[in-house]
Amino acid sequence: MAGEAGTGDCLAWAARDASGTLSPYRFTRRALRGDDVSLRITHCGVCYADVLWTRNKIGDSKYPLVPGHEIVGVVTATGSGVKDLRAGDHVGVGTYVNSCRECVYCNEFCEVFCSKGATFTFNGMDSDGTVTKGGYSSYIVVHERYCYKIPDGYPPDRAAPLLCAGITVYSPMMRHRMNQPGKSLGVIGLGGLGHLAVKFGKAFGLQVTVFSTSESKRGEALDLLGADKFVISSNKQEMESLAKSLDFIIDTASGAHPFDPYMSLLKVHGVLVLVGFPGEVRLSPLSLLHGAKTISGSATGGTKETQEMLDFCAANKVYPEIEVIKIQDINEALDRLVNKDVKYRFVIDIANSLD
Amino acid sequence: MAGEAGTGDCLAWAARDASGTLSPYRFTRRALRGDDVSLRITHCGVCYADVLWTRNKIGDSKYPLVPGHEIVGVVTATGSGVKDLRAGDHVGVGTYVNSCRECVYCNEFCEVFCSKGATFTFNGMDSDGTVTKGGYSSYIVVHERYCYKIPDGYPPDRAAPLLCAGITVYSPMMRHRMNQPGKSLGVIGLGGLGHLAVKFGKAFGLQVTVFSTSESKRGEALDLLGADKFVISSNKQEMESLAKSLDFIIDTASGAHPFDPYMSLLKVHGVLVLVGFPGEVRLSPLSLLHGAKTISGSATGGTKETQEMLDFCAANKVYPEIEVIKIQDINEALDRLVNKDVKYRFVIDIANSLD
Repeated sequence: MAGEAGTGDCLAWAARDASGTLSPYRFTRRALRGDDVSLRITHCGVCYADVLWTRNKIGDSKYPLVPGHEIVGVVTATGSGVKDLRAGDHVGVGTYVNSCRECVYCNEFCEVFCSKGATFTFNGMDSDGTVTKGGYSSYIVVHERYCYKIPDGYPPDRAAPLLCAGITVYSPMMRHRMNQPGKSLGVIGLGGLGHLAVKFGKAFGLQVTVFSTSESKRGEALDLLGADKFVISSNKQEMESLAKSLDFIIDTASGAHPFDPYMSLLKVHGVLVLVGFPGEVRLSPLSLLHGAKTISGSATGGTKETQEMLDFCAANKVYPEIEVIKIQDINEALDRLVNKDVKYRFVIDIANSLD
Repeated sequence: MAGEAGTGDCLAWAARDASGTLSPYRFTRRALRGDDVSLRITHCGVCYADVLWTRNKIGDSKYPLVPGHEIVGVVTATGSGVKDLRAGDHVGVGTYVNSCRECVYCNEFCEVFCSKGATFTFNGMDSDGTVTKGGYSSYIVVHERYCYKIPDGYPPDRAAPLLCAGITVYSPMMRHRMNQPGKSLGVIGLGGLGHLAVKFGKAFGLQVTVFSTSESKRGEALDLLGADKFVISSNKQEMESLAKSLDFIIDTASGAHPFDPYMSLLKVHGVLVLVGFPGEVRLSPLSLLHGAKTISGSATGGTKETQEMLDFCAANKVYPEIEVIKIQDINEALDRLVNKDVKYRFVIDIANSLD
C-alpha cells in the first residue's frame, strides 16, 4: 500500500476508487506562479459533492481523488504579481480555481459560467494538464482571483461552508431580489443549504417558513435557526392553508419530489429556485401560467458576489451551524452525510488533525 | 328553435352545447352604470379560448355561451361618472371586464391577478350574478377601467388580436426585460401568439429565431414576419448548433413537447416563458441548474400594460397578421383554428356581418 500513498510535500486524504474510502495520500502541488498564492489549509467543509465524486456517482472521477471545495486557510506565500493578498491573510477558496478571465462571463465576474469552463477545485483539469486536488489537504496553490478574504474576526471553521453552500444559496437569493424585508420565503429541506437559506432569509428580514419531511427538525428550525413557521410537507391541510402566501421558495431537497404543491403556495409572480438536485422536474403548466410564476435553477456564484456574501455574513452575523471533525473521521462523516445525519455541515479541522 | 334564439336588443352568436356550434342568439346587456361605457362592437378576434369554452373543454361552460375576448368597438354611450372616454372613441376590451379594484394586484394595475378573481369577458360570473357574454355580439357594456383606447389611426381589425394574443406575449417580454436591442429571442410555434412574439421581438431590436415543426412556415417567418432565422425543431444538428445562443425563448406551442432541447439553447441566466398550453412540463434539473436558467409562465396582463402595449404597437407599427371573416363563417373558422389553418389570427367583421 506504500506506493498508493504517493510522494510529495502536500499531505492529503484521497479516494482511490469508487468505494470512495478516503485514506492518507501525498502529492506535489504546482510551483507558485506570479498570480498565485499558497495557502496553509486550516479547515475544509464537507459538501455532498465530495460524496458524489469520491464514489464516482457522476462517472467522471479521476483517482486518486482529493475532494474538498469549501476551503479556508492562511496565506503563506504570494507570487510576484499578487496585488491584494499577503502572507498571514485568512482566505477562502470555493468550487473553482481557474477560468479564462477573458470571456463575457469572466468579465462580469461570473467566472463559474466561464465560456471555456471554470476549472473545478477538485477532479478538474488544470491549465497544466494535471487533475486538480481539493481541500482535504495541507496546502493549496491558487490564482489570487479565486481566493476570498475572510472578514476579520469571522471564525474560520464557520467560514468554510460559505464557500460552496453559502454562495449557492446567496447568489439566487440576490438574483431574484429576495433581500426585501417583509416578503415571505419558503425553504424546502433543512440540510447544509437549507439551514443557510433560513439564516440568509432572516438576515434579509423575510418571514421564513421551513418545509420538512421530518418532525424532528421543528425545534431547531424555529429556535436555533429562527424560522417563523415549520410545516411538515406531507400535511395536506397545513400546506393548503398556505396557498398563495409565499413570495419565494428555495428548494434545497435532493431526490424526486413533487413541485405542484409548492408552486401553489407562491403568490402571483412568485419564484421557486432549485439549488438541490431533485429528480426530473415535473409540473403542470398551470403551476406556471396561473399567477405568472417561475422556476429557476442556480449553481454557486461568481467571485465578486462570493466576496460580497462573505462580507454580508460578517456584517450580519450569519454563521453556519457546523460539526467540526478530524480528517480521521471523514469516512464516517461522509456516510452520515448520505444518511442526512449532520447538523448542518461537517467541517474538517485540517490544521489540527492532518499530519 | 325560435325560443333558443333568445330575446333582447343585443345580437350575438352563441354555442348552445358542447358541440360548440355557434348560431344566432339574442339577449339583453345590463343597463349602463355610472362607470360603464357601451360599445358598438366592430371587430372581434378569434382566440383558441373560444374553442375551449364553446366546446366545454375545460368543463365549466355555461350555455348559451357567447365567446370572444378580443373586442374592438366604438363608444356609443357613457355613464355619468366616466372620465376618460367619450362617445365616438375607438376602444378595445380584452379577457376580463371586472375585478375588485381594491386588492394589492388591482392597486398595481395587475387586475388579471385580482385577489378576488378577475371577471372574464365571457363565461364569467358578473357582479350581478349573470354570466358574462363576449364579443361575438353587437354591443357590450363594460366598466371604463377595462376599456383601452385604440391609438388614432391604428386599424381596428388589426387591433383586435392585441387584446388577448398581443398582451399575452408583450407582458412577459417586458417582465423579463426582453426589450434589449441586440439580444436574441427564440420563438417556439408560429400561430397567433408566435407571430406576434416575432413582431414584438423585431420591434425590440432582437435577433429572432423561429422554431417550427413545419417547413411550410419558413418563407413567411423570414419574409413576412422578419425573423432572422428559421429552424425545424426536429433537426437535431441545427438545434445543437444553436446551443447556448439565445437569451430568451417564448414558447407558444400547445400540446406535449420536450423542454430540455430548448433549455440547452439558452445562454447563462436565459429565460424560457411559457404562454401556450403544453402538456405536463418535464425537464432535467440540470436544464435549470447549469447556467442558472429559468422557466416562467404568463397569462395576459394588467390594464396599464395593455394600454402601454397598444401604444407601443401604434408607435412601432406592430400589426398582427389577420384573416377577416364574417360571423357567418365562424364555425368553419373555429375548425380551421383547431387544425392550425390560419395566418395568423381570425378577426370577425362584426360591424358588417352581424345583423
